[in-house]
Amino acid sequence: MDNRKRIFSAMRPTGRLHYGHMAGALINWVKLQDEYNCFWGIADWHAMMSDYADPGRLKDNCYEILLDWLAVGVDPEKASVFVQSHVKQHAEIHLALSMITPLGWLQRCPTYKEQILNLQNKDLSTYAFLGYPVLMAGDILLYKSFAVPVGEDQSAHLELTREIARRFNGFYGEIFPEPGTLLTPAAKMPGTDGRKMSKSYGNSLQIAEDMDTIWGKVRTMMTDPARERRTDKGTPEKCPVWDVHKFFNKDAQELSEIYEGCMTAGIGCVDCKKKLMVHLSEMMDPIQKRRTEFAKQRDDLKQILEAGAARARAVAEETMADVYRAMNLLH
Amino acid sequence: MDNRKRIFSAMRPTGRLHYGHMAGALINWVKLQDEYNCFWGIADWHAMMSDYADPGRLKDNCYEILLDWLAVGVDPEKASVFVQSHVKQHAEIHLALSMITPLGWLQRCPTYKEQILNLQNKDLSTYAFLGYPVLMAGDILLYKSFAVPVGEDQSAHLELTREIARRFNGFYGEIFPEPGTLLTPAAKMPGTDGRKMSKSYGNSLQIAEDMDTIWGKVRTMMTDPARERRTDKGTPEKCPVWDVHKFFNKDAQELSEIYEGCMTAGIGCVDCKKKLMVHLSEMMDPIQKRRTEFAKQRDDLKQILEAGAARARAVAEETMADVYRAMNLLH
Repeated sequence: MDNRKRIFSAMRPTGRLHYGHMAGALINWVKLQDEYNCFWGIADWHAMMSDYADPGRLKDNCYEILLDWLAVGVDPEKASVFVQSHVKQHAEIHLALSMITPLGWLQRCPTYKEQILNLQNKDLSTYAFLGYPVLMAGDILLYKSFAVPVGEDQSAHLELTREIARRFNGFYGEIFPEPGTLLTPAAKMPGTDGRKMSKSYGNSLQIAEDMDTIWGKVRTMMTDPARERRTDKGTPEKCPVWDVHKFFNKDAQELSEIYEGCMTAGIGCVDCKKKLMVHLSEMMDPIQKRRTEFAKQRDDLKQILEAGAARARAVAEETMADVYRAMNLLH
Repeated sequence: MDNRKRIFSAMRPTGRLHYGHMAGALINWVKLQDEYNCFWGIADWHAMMSDYADPGRLKDNCYEILLDWLAVGVDPEKASVFVQSHVKQHAEIHLALSMITPLGWLQRCPTYKEQILNLQNKDLSTYAFLGYPVLMAGDILLYKSFAVPVGEDQSAHLELTREIARRFNGFYGEIFPEPGTLLTPAAKMPGTDGRKMSKSYGNSLQIAEDMDTIWGKVRTMMTDPARERRTDKGTPEKCPVWDVHKFFNKDAQELSEIYEGCMTAGIGCVDCKKKLMVHLSEMMDPIQKRRTEFAKQRDDLKQILEAGAARARAVAEETMADVYRAMNLLH
């Protein structure tokens, strides 16, 4: 019995992960698993909400995301790694919480309309998608998570989770602790075009991509637009490559040299990018090696997901017993 | 393995059942269980949708409804009798179907607004209540029911079930047969005030009530309002007691005598009601005896529900395996 405080987080299996996921979440997860009893979910039901019309890649994507996690250092011995739909209690708690969730809370949820606008090529006017925050609240509350590691942009959803927990507790007694936030240190990770790195922008560096492919992307990556010629002086703060340097380059001495060199036109952008590649390789080489090794062992991956789901179910079953008792269902 | 065609129906455990339930459904169920592989659900999640704020009686009501069923002749050896929330696959299929159910279908559902108006003392503006038809579709489709025994007033909901099945099949292949209807022969069962018998009108004759209590209600039951005095001639078609006679009185000879007697003022209303009581007792005495016997055996009731849920789960698990495979979830 693991008595550490429990934490839940999840990612939707919609494709391979990129450096932004690593910087914004995974590296933090790897730290958290030493301190907390972590439950990391592959949220296939959440992916299904947007991809229901074409779930052909869903199964493969579960493995891709698992490989990315394991490669970066998520350790299935320390954390429970599982597929959401393998823990049936997620469906049960979704139904239970739906009983007490006011429709208005969902209709007024700021991210709801926003996402419908963002994904205009998909028909998201389904019953499930309106209930996205109910399933998400269920995911978190199922493990009685003491906190959730979140980026700042997810705080609205978490507030709704707390409100649902409060309302449930108000009707049936103190079953769910209100989950707090473990704010993930903000790491700005721009894509190759300078915008936020995102799969849908086509500007991402993927964890699974080899260093040749990455160099192909970094070589043509946008830099300070004002520095048109090699002899122009640059402004690192306006250069996306500099943001990537700050994340991957731990050599403070070299960082100041690059900063100075850019400001004075002492080094060119290609030099700067080549220096970056050294640090990228240093960090990514072992990650890719691990990924390749894990990818060969499909049976091991299945085994990891089964063991993770079993551990998750053990906690989830206890929570659902509390829920059924509190709601006075016959069990 | 029971290879008979499967049928599902359910009732919400909101209190003891009355003669209207018996006439409108249960007597039909007792016939159906000889011909079909019947799944009779005690729909506690559906009850929770309207009673979430005060589920204090829910557990007892599950037993009350079970006793009423058994008393009338539902046979747990022939049919699977179970509590909906004991078969977790109901929650799973609800989540699965919610993925593909357009919000507009639910918002435009004719019974949705109607019920919100009917139950104005309860706040039904919850996420679950909007999804009532999704859970109901799940209940039926989980058993790949070939048909559902319904009264005419439920046909709109069943049509929505078929539409959800068609849409699911359209996306993922032919998983669900579209359930047909087994229209329950309409049996007009008025309450003591002449309106349709209904618990909420306070005009019902309950299956569990002893014959003294029933006589107290029948004695003061409304009759043809035009027949004010014993010497007035009556019109059976305008008399609710006559409707009850037609259901319980199988003695054709006596029925015509009563009809004639009423038309000619040959018999009075009290005489007519006393004759009715003979037939009520004839039918209800053994039912009540069975009910009393079953009520003593709480452990047997638990056993019945456990065995029923186990049989239901066996079918439900197969269906969900089909659903997960069709939706390309990793299982």
